[in-house]
Amino acid sequence: MSAVDFSALAEQFTTFYYQQFDQDRSQLGNLYRDSSMLTFETTQVQGTKDIVEKLVSFPFQKVAHRISTLDAQPGSPNGGDVIVMVTGDLLIDEEQNPQRYSQVFHLMPDGASYYVFNDIFRLNYSG
Amino acid sequence: MSAVDFSALAEQFTTFYYQQFDQDRSQLGNLYRDSSMLTFETTQVQGTKDIVEKLVSFPFQKVAHRISTLDAQPGSPNGGDVIVMVTGDLLIDEEQNPQRYSQVFHLMPDGASYYVFNDIFRLNYSG
Repeated sequence: MSAVDFSALAEQFTTFYYQQFDQDRSQLGNLYRDSSMLTFETTQVQGTKDIVEKLVSFPFQKVAHRISTLDAQPGSPNGGDVIVMVTGDLLIDEEQNPQRYSQVFHLMPDGASYYVFNDIFRLNYSG
Repeated sequence: MSAVDFSALAEQFTTFYYQQFDQDRSQLGNLYRDSSMLTFETTQVQGTKDIVEKLVSFPFQKVAHRISTLDAQPGSPNGGDVIVMVTGDLLIDEEQNPQRYSQVFHLMPDGASYYVFNDIFRLNYSG
């Protein structure tokens, strides 16, 4: 569908992103830009500074993301951007029961690397 | 974040899309283009014809989508495209227990309307 190996890119990105998030989420700022948007549950913020502030504000001490499904598609006919959808489990502090979540990343090319333009995160509560 | 009321657009689109899907999904073709991509679980198809064939091939007779969460963001700084993430419940035939799902739509402007460029659908199985 595209010259870019968007599936490999999506895997590399999400692996790095969640490792960094789970280890020290205050360091995620270089993956965003001032135009980037984060929707976390019902909260919307824009820009690197506000996004990192939001991520750091979560009250948990320990967190681990486990990816269940990872799907990617090129996000435009010729633009080199990539749409990624993740579903997975979130393990928080000493909780035994993981919480299911869904997350979308829209990755934009920036020179030789990519940044997150769109980030939408939702916990999946039982219906 | 954008001059387009992307939240209202996302609500209108998803309401129309799921009503049409649940009523007669063979008629969804005019929402896609030949460049459009659909990832449905582990299957990837491209183009209006293959996407509609895939949607029509599902073995269920009756289906109903119920939206739990709906989030939207402008998909580019100036492009007018919109990223939508839906989580919801799928009720199939006479099943009493809904299945949770997550779906992403990337809507591209096309004159006065929009079409689906990216469509990624996953059922959320328990972890």
